[in-house]
Amino acid sequence: MTSMAASRNLGFQFPWNFSNAKKENMEVLKLRLYSSCNTNMLNNKRRFSLVTANSHSSPQKVDTVNGTKVNGIHVVEAPLSGSKLANESAADAALVTSLRGRFVEGRFVYRQIFAIRSYEIGPDKTATMETLMNFLQETALNHVTSSGIGGDGFGATREMSLRKLIWVVTRIQVQVQRYSKWGDEIEIDTWVDAAGKNGMRRDWIIRDHYTKEIITRATSTWVIMNRETRRLSKIPCEVKQELVPFYLYRIAVASEEKDCEKIDKLTDETAERIRSGMAPRWNDMDANQHVNNVKYIGWILESVPIEVLEDFNMTSMTLEFRRECQQSNLLESITTPTARIIGESNNSINRKPDLQYTHMLRLQDNKSDVVRARTEWHFKSK
Amino acid sequence: MTSMAASRNLGFQFPWNFSNAKKENMEVLKLRLYSSCNTNMLNNKRRFSLVTANSHSSPQKVDTVNGTKVNGIHVVEAPLSGSKLANESAADAALVTSLRGRFVEGRFVYRQIFAIRSYEIGPDKTATMETLMNFLQETALNHVTSSGIGGDGFGATREMSLRKLIWVVTRIQVQVQRYSKWGDEIEIDTWVDAAGKNGMRRDWIIRDHYTKEIITRATSTWVIMNRETRRLSKIPCEVKQELVPFYLYRIAVASEEKDCEKIDKLTDETAERIRSGMAPRWNDMDANQHVNNVKYIGWILESVPIEVLEDFNMTSMTLEFRRECQQSNLLESITTPTARIIGESNNSINRKPDLQYTHMLRLQDNKSDVVRARTEWHFKSK
Repeated sequence: MTSMAASRNLGFQFPWNFSNAKKENMEVLKLRLYSSCNTNMLNNKRRFSLVTANSHSSPQKVDTVNGTKVNGIHVVEAPLSGSKLANESAADAALVTSLRGRFVEGRFVYRQIFAIRSYEIGPDKTATMETLMNFLQETALNHVTSSGIGGDGFGATREMSLRKLIWVVTRIQVQVQRYSKWGDEIEIDTWVDAAGKNGMRRDWIIRDHYTKEIITRATSTWVIMNRETRRLSKIPCEVKQELVPFYLYRIAVASEEKDCEKIDKLTDETAERIRSGMAPRWNDMDANQHVNNVKYIGWILESVPIEVLEDFNMTSMTLEFRRECQQSNLLESITTPTARIIGESNNSINRKPDLQYTHMLRLQDNKSDVVRARTEWHFKSK
Repeated sequence: MTSMAASRNLGFQFPWNFSNAKKENMEVLKLRLYSSCNTNMLNNKRRFSLVTANSHSSPQKVDTVNGTKVNGIHVVEAPLSGSKLANESAADAALVTSLRGRFVEGRFVYRQIFAIRSYEIGPDKTATMETLMNFLQETALNHVTSSGIGGDGFGATREMSLRKLIWVVTRIQVQVQRYSKWGDEIEIDTWVDAAGKNGMRRDWIIRDHYTKEIITRATSTWVIMNRETRRLSKIPCEVKQELVPFYLYRIAVASEEKDCEKIDKLTDETAERIRSGMAPRWNDMDANQHVNNVKYIGWILESVPIEVLEDFNMTSMTLEFRRECQQSNLLESITTPTARIIGESNNSINRKPDLQYTHMLRLQDNKSDVVRARTEWHFKSK
C-alpha cells in the first residue's frame, strides 16, 4: 500500500513554481516545509479499514494474494481456488488479477512481473531506458490503486484528492546493471518511505524473474503540490495517516551510490552539443496536455553522439525535473561530457563508467531549463 | 502455428523496391508471383512434429494450455497442476506462461490478454491507435514464436530464415468501435490465411475481456522478401508447408467494409496541410536501423488539425507501406480531407464517419512517399 506514485498526468510532473522562484535546490525548500502534524499514525487502525473500498471502476483492484489484514487494511480473499485452474476462464482471471501485480512481504512491497515486448526494445534488441521508466511508473500507479487508499486521478491518495493535491516527482535515479532482452521476464518491486518532513521516497528493484539477479535499482523523490495554485504543500496529517502504515525502511540505492549532487546548469558556453527545434508530438502529451516525463529521455538522447548510443550502454541516469512543458513549446537538447569522470562513481557495476555526460532540456524561446540530467555509460562488450 | 508476423525489425517493413520500381499497385505484383509449388501440404504431418523444438532462448515458449497434438504439431503438457496454485511461485509461473498468450480453437487462433497500462493511453485517457498497433504486432510475433515454426529474427519461419526471407507488410486496416480506458482488460485473437498465391493475410479481433464485446477489427496483407537482395519472392513450397496447417478461413473485417481502394498520392497541389522537418529520433529506430512502422502513426497525426485530435475519435485507419525510412531522413506529413466522404463507408459503427482524411508521409528531400493512409473519425460524444 502506500501511496505515492508516479503519475502520468498529475503526479509525474515537476515542480515548476520552484523553478520560477529560482529555488535551485530542492533540499532548501524541503527544510522550510516543517510539519506540524500531531498524529499517532501507526495506531490509527480504524481509519485504514474504512478506506479499502476501491474507487477505481474496474474489477479486481484489491490485491488478492496475501493475508487478510496487514498494515491495518483488510484484504479481500483470493477469488481463485487451485481446483479451478483447469478451467480456462479461471486461468484467465488469475492472469488478469496478476497483470497489475500484487503485494509481497506483508504488503510493504508491491511486485509486478513484465515480459519485455517486441516494441519495448531498442535497436540493440534490449529494453530501452524509456521502457524501464514506463515500467517504474506503471508499478507505482498499480501500487497505489491496489492499496485501497487511491483517490481520483493518477497516484494521489483519497485524502489528497479531497484537497486537490497531487504528487510531483523532483528527482529520479536509475542504475542499470544489465538490460533485458525481448522475451525476458522481469519482476519489479516497489515501496515507499518518508523523505524528510514533507517528501516521500519511492524505490524500485528490478530482478530477473528466474534467476532473481538484481538488474536495475531506482530511487525517486516526491513532494505534494496543489493542482490549482501550483504551489507546494506540506503533507496534510490525514494524508500522512494514509501513507505511514506502508512506509518501509529499506533503500534500493546504497547511500554511497546515491546521486545527490547538484546537476550543473548548461549554457551556450558550456554546451558541447546542442540539438534545437525539437517539437513535442501530440502523442507525447498526457491527459493534462503536458509532456509525459518519460518522453524527456528520448529528447535528451537526441544530443548524445550516435556512436555513444550505438556502442555504449547507459548504466545510470539521474533526472531532475524543473519545469513543465506543453505541446506548443520547442525544446533544445544539450549534452556536455563531464570533466570529473574519474571522481567517485555513481554506477554500481563495480567499475568506473567509461563516459559521463551532463544534459539539459530547455525551452527554445526563453532558455529556461525543463530537465537536467546526468548519465553514465559503459562500453558494450560484444 | 502459423507464422506470419508483424516484425519490428524485419517483417514489419514495407516493400521499398516496389516503390523504387514505381509499381503503384501491389495487386499487380501479386498476380505476377505465380506459385508453382507441388505439395500435399495438409498431409505432411511428420515435418511439423519435427519443428516443435523451440529456438527461442527463454523458457515456456510453447503454449501449454491446449491439447497435445493439433495442426500436426505436438504440444507439451501444461506444467501447472491446479493443486499447485496456492504456491506463489506457481502462480507466477502461470502468469508468465500466460503473458505471451495461448492458442485457442484447436490452435488455429492465438489469444493474448492485455491490461491497458498508464503509459499506453493518450490525452483523453484511452488507449491510442499506436498502442493498438503495438499490441497487434506483439500478438503476431508471439503467435509465431509459440507455434514452434519460428526461425531466427522476428516473425520469420524456420524455412524462411534458412533462405534469408522476411515478411513485409504491405497494408493494414484497423477499425476501432471503441477505445479502451486505462485499466481495461482486452483480449486479442489473431490468425492467418492465404492471400492470393503469394501473400498471407493476418487478421485480429480485439474484445473486451469481460463482456466479449468486439471493440476492434483489423486485417493486414504480407508478402515475402529476400532481406539481402530486397526483392520480392514467391512463397517457397517448404514455407507454405509450414504455414498451411494454420490457415483459418475466417475474416475479421467483412468484405463490404474492407478498404481495398487505392489511396491517392498527395502532392503539393492537393495537400491541405503540410508539416515538414520531422526527424526520426533514435528511439524510433528498430534493430535494423529502420523506422518502426508503428511510429508512422504519430507523424501522420502531426498534420491533422488539433481540434480533430481533441474532439474526434479515429474509428478507422488504413496504412499502405511503400518505402523504408532511416534516421537520417527528414519527413513531411501531409493531410487532406477526402471529398467522397458520403460515399460507401468503411467504418463499422453503423453510421457514416463525420470526417475522412487522406494522408501521406514523404521524404522531404525527394518527395517520394513512404506511407499513404486513410483515416475516418467520429465526433466524441461526451
